[in-house]
Amino acid sequence: MKEKVTIYDIAKALNITAATVSRALNNNPKISEATKTLVMETAKKMNYEQNRFALALKSGKSHNVGVIVPFINRNFFSSIIRGIEEELYPKGYHVIICQTHEDAKKEEETVQNLLNAQVDGILMSVSKTTQQVRHFKKILKSNTPLVFFDRIKEMDGVSTVTINDFQGGYMATKHLIDVGCTRIAHATVDLALPIYKHRFEGYKQALEDHDIAYNDDYLITTKSDIDAGEKAIKKLLKLKNAPDAIFSASDYAALGAIQQLNVLGIKVPDDFAVVGFSNEPFTQFMELSMSTVDQSPVEMGKTAARVFLEQMKEPNLKIMKKVELSPELIVRKSSSKLTANNKQI
Amino acid sequence: MKEKVTIYDIAKALNITAATVSRALNNNPKISEATKTLVMETAKKMNYEQNRFALALKSGKSHNVGVIVPFINRNFFSSIIRGIEEELYPKGYHVIICQTHEDAKKEEETVQNLLNAQVDGILMSVSKTTQQVRHFKKILKSNTPLVFFDRIKEMDGVSTVTINDFQGGYMATKHLIDVGCTRIAHATVDLALPIYKHRFEGYKQALEDHDIAYNDDYLITTKSDIDAGEKAIKKLLKLKNAPDAIFSASDYAALGAIQQLNVLGIKVPDDFAVVGFSNEPFTQFMELSMSTVDQSPVEMGKTAARVFLEQMKEPNLKIMKKVELSPELIVRKSSSKLTANNKQI
Repeated sequence: MKEKVTIYDIAKALNITAATVSRALNNNPKISEATKTLVMETAKKMNYEQNRFALALKSGKSHNVGVIVPFINRNFFSSIIRGIEEELYPKGYHVIICQTHEDAKKEEETVQNLLNAQVDGILMSVSKTTQQVRHFKKILKSNTPLVFFDRIKEMDGVSTVTINDFQGGYMATKHLIDVGCTRIAHATVDLALPIYKHRFEGYKQALEDHDIAYNDDYLITTKSDIDAGEKAIKKLLKLKNAPDAIFSASDYAALGAIQQLNVLGIKVPDDFAVVGFSNEPFTQFMELSMSTVDQSPVEMGKTAARVFLEQMKEPNLKIMKKVELSPELIVRKSSSKLTANNKQI
Repeated sequence: MKEKVTIYDIAKALNITAATVSRALNNNPKISEATKTLVMETAKKMNYEQNRFALALKSGKSHNVGVIVPFINRNFFSSIIRGIEEELYPKGYHVIICQTHEDAKKEEETVQNLLNAQVDGILMSVSKTTQQVRHFKKILKSNTPLVFFDRIKEMDGVSTVTINDFQGGYMATKHLIDVGCTRIAHATVDLALPIYKHRFEGYKQALEDHDIAYNDDYLITTKSDIDAGEKAIKKLLKLKNAPDAIFSASDYAALGAIQQLNVLGIKVPDDFAVVGFSNEPFTQFMELSMSTVDQSPVEMGKTAARVFLEQMKEPNLKIMKKVELSPELIVRKSSSKLTANNKQI
């Protein structure tokens, strides 16, 4: 397999300089028509393809937008990407997707990689393990628009699109109180990340507003996966005053919780109610469908894309926009024990 | 927001030619040390970042690999991508993901876009609507390694990684015969695509091997979504001699089928057995877990990545490799009506 044909190969074939080849290909008036024709024909014969990125080096426009997410296989993120594409594709932009697998190092490398690829903008959700912001500063320094969605870092000059996670946590918890639960546990993923911190704060506020004392033992930190949810339930049920419900900031952990409750013979929702967060598609197909909080991810993606387009339209302005969407509680079987009798819901 | 700094800006600032700036940055011996130092310092001061893609234009290596799939939000494809990343990331490659949404035009544009971005290779699964192969020929012409996985086009010089879809179709159908079904329908997606054609051929062969006549009325072409599965069932049940089972080449259509059977009060699996294809995660969390065929997508991704790496190691050879993986039948509730009594399974 041969290396790609470069302007150097064409220059060699014609015994002229690479600079002349380059100028001829770019229709530089300093080059004679005869030379231009010769270069063009030779380039064609040698299968040389003038590189759009080489042109982008001059114009600063590649019409590619980089999207970075922790995982592409979470419905939440793939739906955001769909929203971004639906908005950007008709405007002539191509979307390049990269996943970090929650690895801060990989995130830094990916950012550098996309900057090298001369993307016109970066739309991203921050990895859980990211502490440093130097790669974000690099994006800003290179004058590439940066929009954070869902998982953000508060930074001057960066636009953000989030949902009101406080409200989501509040709604989920209030719903569990409304169906008669009084000992409501909360499974969080990482309180250092704003999304989880705000869901937790919503949870606490709902308890306080309903005169239920916050119990530190009921707060448990888990990974966002099935195993972690199983372990969380085992731990919570060992408590002297075991909880009768859980609001999990992750649908996957909530799924693990339900599976473990089944194993232990504890009836969901009658003896233990469960609410997750994210409205992953599996939540409605489960043996016992799961209550959860929907985050309208397609709308989030569209909004992030629109913020980017607005910035592209006004290259001479530095636009910093903060958009917050509202979550929606979806009540399903895993928490609807008293729904029939209880009109509060 | 300013445009990106280019070598032309540096040239202007120093009142020298862009060619000189370029040579200085590339450490060309024709340029004096004094000029080099001046250019380097000015470039640094102006936040110029030498572009890896500009370098790639010369070396032909960007260390980016493009992966194109119809959808990122199908577990099958996201798992393949995970396999590709697990194999390539430790070798210093970054994976850029693009989705076509089954749109042939978008696929062509995406290929061109990745070629422009100087990717070192393209690993892809062909869109359902793709008829033309000119964009694949373009990849080959540019000497960029191309590996097809799962959905392939037979082309000279292109390596492929597939699973044995014939075997998958055969296993699923034989299983339905084994549990006592005799009027087995088949929902296909598009017989023009080899994967679906082979599943259909496996289905036919299993019928023939068990002395069941193939019935053309039982073959139905659907989209790979829930709605299409619902419609398929409605249509099949209107037949005079309605089927008692369906093998669907799509898990999503199979899900729609099960939901529609529930609506109609037809008991699954007792009165109607269902087997899907792909082992999407929802299949195990459903009210009635779904039998399906697993395609070991992570392994498929790893294999495709290894084929690419092999080609990169031997740039002077044209390697064409065909790898076929074996599928695995997973029996769950939607088809296990006779499992207890029937030792054939």
